[in-house]
Amino acid sequence: MLSAPALQQRFLSIRENKVFETFVIVVIVLSAIMIGAKTYAIPEPVVQAMKVLDLGITLFFLVEVLIRLVAEGSLKAFFRKGWNVFDFVIVVASLVPLEDSETALLGRLLRIFRVLRLVSIIPELRVLLNAFVRAIPRMGYVSLLMFIIFYIYAAMGAMFFHQINSELWGNITISMLTLFRIATFEDWTDVMYETMAVYPLSWIFYLSFIFIVAFVFLNMMIGIVLETLQREHERHDRESGEGEAGEVHWLREHVAAMEAKMTRMEQMLQDLHGRR
Amino acid sequence: MLSAPALQQRFLSIRENKVFETFVIVVIVLSAIMIGAKTYAIPEPVVQAMKVLDLGITLFFLVEVLIRLVAEGSLKAFFRKGWNVFDFVIVVASLVPLEDSETALLGRLLRIFRVLRLVSIIPELRVLLNAFVRAIPRMGYVSLLMFIIFYIYAAMGAMFFHQINSELWGNITISMLTLFRIATFEDWTDVMYETMAVYPLSWIFYLSFIFIVAFVFLNMMIGIVLETLQREHERHDRESGEGEAGEVHWLREHVAAMEAKMTRMEQMLQDLHGRR
Amino acid sequence: MLSAPALQQRFLSIRENKVFETFVIVVIVLSAIMIGAKTYAIPEPVVQAMKVLDLGITLFFLVEVLIRLVAEGSLKAFFRKGWNVFDFVIVVASLVPLEDSETALLGRLLRIFRVLRLVSIIPELRVLLNAFVRAIPRMGYVSLLMFIIFYIYAAMGAMFFHQINSELWGNITISMLTLFRIATFEDWTDVMYETMAVYPLSWIFYLSFIFIVAFVFLNMMIGIVLETLQREHERHDRESGEGEAGEVHWLREHVAAMEAKMTRMEQMLQDLHGRR
Amino acid sequence: MLSAPALQQRFLSIRENKVFETFVIVVIVLSAIMIGAKTYAIPEPVVQAMKVLDLGITLFFLVEVLIRLVAEGSLKAFFRKGWNVFDFVIVVASLVPLEDSETALLGRLLRIFRVLRLVSIIPELRVLLNAFVRAIPRMGYVSLLMFIIFYIYAAMGAMFFHQINSELWGNITISMLTLFRIATFEDWTDVMYETMAVYPLSWIFYLSFIFIVAFVFLNMMIGIVLETLQREHERHDRESGEGEAGEVHWLREHVAAMEAKMTRMEQMLQDLHGRR
Repeated sequence: MLSAPALQQRFLSIRENKVFETFVIVVIVLSAIMIGAKTYAIPEPVVQAMKVLDLGITLFFLVEVLIRLVAEGSLKAFFRKGWNVFDFVIVVASLVPLEDSETALLGRLLRIFRVLRLVSIIPELRVLLNAFVRAIPRMGYVSLLMFIIFYIYAAMGAMFFHQINSELWGNITISMLTLFRIATFEDWTDVMYETMAVYPLSWIFYLSFIFIVAFVFLNMMIGIVLETLQREHERHDRESGEGEAGEVHWLREHVAAMEAKMTRMEQMLQDLHGRR
Repeated sequence: MLSAPALQQRFLSIRENKVFETFVIVVIVLSAIMIGAKTYAIPEPVVQAMKVLDLGITLFFLVEVLIRLVAEGSLKAFFRKGWNVFDFVIVVASLVPLEDSETALLGRLLRIFRVLRLVSIIPELRVLLNAFVRAIPRMGYVSLLMFIIFYIYAAMGAMFFHQINSELWGNITISMLTLFRIATFEDWTDVMYETMAVYPLSWIFYLSFIFIVAFVFLNMMIGIVLETLQREHERHDRESGEGEAGEVHWLREHVAAMEAKMTRMEQMLQDLHGRR
Repeated sequence: MLSAPALQQRFLSIRENKVFETFVIVVIVLSAIMIGAKTYAIPEPVVQAMKVLDLGITLFFLVEVLIRLVAEGSLKAFFRKGWNVFDFVIVVASLVPLEDSETALLGRLLRIFRVLRLVSIIPELRVLLNAFVRAIPRMGYVSLLMFIIFYIYAAMGAMFFHQINSELWGNITISMLTLFRIATFEDWTDVMYETMAVYPLSWIFYLSFIFIVAFVFLNMMIGIVLETLQREHERHDRESGEGEAGEVHWLREHVAAMEAKMTRMEQMLQDLHGRR
Repeated sequence: MLSAPALQQRFLSIRENKVFETFVIVVIVLSAIMIGAKTYAIPEPVVQAMKVLDLGITLFFLVEVLIRLVAEGSLKAFFRKGWNVFDFVIVVASLVPLEDSETALLGRLLRIFRVLRLVSIIPELRVLLNAFVRAIPRMGYVSLLMFIIFYIYAAMGAMFFHQINSELWGNITISMLTLFRIATFEDWTDVMYETMAVYPLSWIFYLSFIFIVAFVFLNMMIGIVLETLQREHERHDRESGEGEAGEVHWLREHVAAMEAKMTRMEQMLQDLHGRR
């Protein structure tokens, strides 16, 4: 029989096969849609076949997770990695028999989250999610800044426009929702024309808000994306020696070697020079 | 008579002529619009002139494709390149006489796709389409991630808002369409206010969805575009020796030469040093 | 007792503590929301607890600002820095007793601006705001360009569409507001269809406007963000010696040293060479 | 008296003065707004003062243009530069007396274009416009690609949805306008739901269109902006020797010098080595 690492290697090679990946994607997506689209008449054999394929993928994935667990050696080491926990939870949740608890809310929710097996099985999705997770701290600060801007505008809106339309500007929380609506440009002119009838200069309020929010939002979003991307890109280039950053890294190493060589040469020259 | 490669060269030089290119663009665009705008009264001579010019372009293009085919030597080698197949199909489809099959659906569709001759004739459009095609694999994974997000939100929406408005939240597929509408900000507040009347906290559902989708979408789009562009840009610079990447590449080559020279010099110095 | 710089150091270490920062953010955000959401029934003890915590933060911040002032030595030196002035104003404004002037407009406004204590306390928000302030000059020129585009289109709109709908195109200032609405895509087709009934070709006016504004806006926004970011990024890299820019900077310094070394070596070689 | 180049220098130094620039911007913007806002009651002395200041700026600008013309030497050399022609036309058009031709269309148009004096006077706006003009060729090809996409979708729309709503899908040109409206998300769901009542799968038509257009548009826009910017940025860095590109350029020059030096050194070493 094969050892755990050898088996792990074999499963990895299956998983990295493009045909297998495409097959897995199609099965998971189709069975996810079938859960939702019960109202459409799908022939019974198709439904049964999909169920079997779907279960097969879950079992393949279960075996793979168990092999990874055995290969890791200890439970502690295995569960220290976030992705292992994620994979384990998803596979266990996918194995819960759902037919019995057809009407229960929990059962339905579990079925929905089965679609997350896609993330467990496709490594590219993990890369995308990793980038997303890494951007969260900076996004947190941007959200705080946005909150401050929304709050100040909402407080002013609640103060001045309260009498005009209390459904939109009744208190600060309602005003913040209205401002979010304005930020998405959803019928914002209706809101503006209403207050302009009372305060003709209130367009300054709306336009300045739109400008600031659009600028801060675009600024931050693009900034976050670019920084994450560029660092990733540069690191990859440097490590692989490809591209401009790779060449610069090559240069650095070779120039360092040349400098050492030169120091030795200067020493020898000084010897030659001094000896005479 | 000229040989096939010489003729090919001559046709290439005609095609790269800016005046000829502009003329071709104008004729194709105008005849495309004329197909569509039959209801407007266009003088008969103009229509006839356009038809002749349009046919002229198709013939020029047909001759050029045939010459390229002859120059290539074998049919197999010619049709191995994707763009050759594209060009050949477009030119043949453009030659099908359409007047007879005026009312047939196929005839009309063929006429529409004649506008694709623009892609065949203008090399810059091929560059743009190449970049587009190269971005598809990564876009596929982004689409999968978007599908997961839409699916989870749609399933929750169908579960909780089903009774409120079954036209918008009747099943998961309908809910996904509704969520796409929300993602484009199209009257999304109407949808939200409707469910907020029953679940006052449902704004969390909408806002979190909008935030996640906007972030993931912007992130991915910008990321894909930038990566494709930057690599293209760097590669071009390195090859042509222009710009920063070009200079870095120059540096790499010359530093390598210097290092070899230095190794020779150190050897000679050691000889000198040791001989005494 | 501790000296002012030592105390300053201690306060800085408290402030940089992540747990403390999170606590401060939660308290300030919650008390900001409570000001706005008076209409919701919040239990009295919670309100009292929040008030005490909120005051505690203001006092912590007051003490910190005072210590910084003492450490700086002179009032003049302290107030020369923009952020010190900002911190001082915010902390003083937060200390003004508001219960007495419940109904006064100034009192309410002061309470709203208390949320700006977030900016005073979280250094990351200052970094974001600094980037924002640094982008203002270039944004000013972009705004001017946008003003010119809006003005020319508004003037033409007011000239030609004045009779069609004077509420939208009555004079240039009203037209500019209408154009801003069109730029946000808010019911812009209604505006267009109205004028197309009189001038069938007026869609050219709208489409060209949308294209130019979208292009200029996107262009400028992305341009500003990227330039600010890239410079910041490069400077940081160069200073810290990390990343590509850091390696290039390392190269520059070491190549300069190598060149000096080489000059010395050539001199010695010439001596050796000449002496014989 | 001063020579033409010396005068030109003096005018340049006035123009680069920030206070003067701000003053010019304020006067031009205010007088532009006053033309439009005739309906508001502005005190007569203010109007008169603005007119005088406005004329003053035009005269200052006229003198400056004339001096530049004299300094250039020949009319031909002066008018070969695009910006000189632009400046000359704007200043001459601004001098045309307008009070007489109050109602004439040409007079009104001339007055509107007076706002373009801003571009003549503020060099930063020229830089922005230069970047814009430089992006036009590539934008032309992107527009062609967009036209092809719109055309194919419009033709299919006109073919299949013609009977459903001929106001939106009557012929290809009308369909293209409808598609542009869908691309801006303006009430696009209304259009979709209407056709979905007849063809339930027509959402594929709309969604694929939105995806392709959004992707191509964003892709191209960002691509164009970035490429223009990055080249500009790199060129500036290389020329000024600042930033990473500047350092790389410094490296290139110095490494070339080092290589020459090394060749000389190797020669000398070989002499030394061989002589023995």
